[in-house]
Amino acid sequence: MKKVEHIGIAVKDMTASKLLFEKLLGATSYKTEEVESEKVITAFFKNETSKIELLAASHPDSAIAKFIDKKGEGIHHIAFEVENIENEISRLKDEGFVFVDELPKKGADNKRVVFLHPKNTNGVLIELCQEIK
Amino acid sequence: MKKVEHIGIAVKDMTASKLLFEKLLGATSYKTEEVESEKVITAFFKNETSKIELLAASHPDSAIAKFIDKKGEGIHHIAFEVENIENEISRLKDEGFVFVDELPKKGADNKRVVFLHPKNTNGVLIELCQEIK
Repeated sequence: MKKVEHIGIAVKDMTASKLLFEKLLGATSYKTEEVESEKVITAFFKNETSKIELLAASHPDSAIAKFIDKKGEGIHHIAFEVENIENEISRLKDEGFVFVDELPKKGADNKRVVFLHPKNTNGVLIELCQEIK
Repeated sequence: MKKVEHIGIAVKDMTASKLLFEKLLGATSYKTEEVESEKVITAFFKNETSKIELLAASHPDSAIAKFIDKKGEGIHHIAFEVENIENEISRLKDEGFVFVDELPKKGADNKRVVFLHPKNTNGVLIELCQEIK
């Protein structure tokens, strides 16, 4: 795990939340992107070393809609940047961790991503991501 | 807001969670510290650019114990490093944000810290922190 690449935050109303985080972070969002496979709309903010990703559901059966129904708006996941996602999946499986999906998928912001199951990580949803070069 | 200084994670059993995060992050905790005023025990992990802080209650009426009772273990807060905490409090108050405490307090890891009220930040508990020099 190299570093925290971004922190994902589940929001209900992307327009209102983008304005809110612009005020909060004193910065404007540099990218808005829909990830159709995940049924989410994302907006990214950068600071010196990592990013904040706002996530809003684009469909009622999106994982983000379900998360908000259950827990309310708030921090959804931590994404760690890795050099080689296959190697890191293999290392973590050997340590007994369980993954939500078997293989990395195309995520937002030009990344291949995979999620660890939070039942084995103290309730924290953790994403591994590797930049697509 | 300069950068994400750390992400705080509420845990029930510090000994078990330290082992878990050592396996997960492939790194050992560099510091364990009790913050008596907050009734928490903390353990810190470093990666290239930011830190993970595990937080366990040292007393049943700690905010961490209450958080876990209500929401379960998981991500508790995001801490942003700031150059001048008083200036940042002032800027954010002008933007309409509300703080949990009026003044910064001594936090873990040699920092002055203050928390924004999550009711105004999409349910995200946000800490501002400034290194004590």
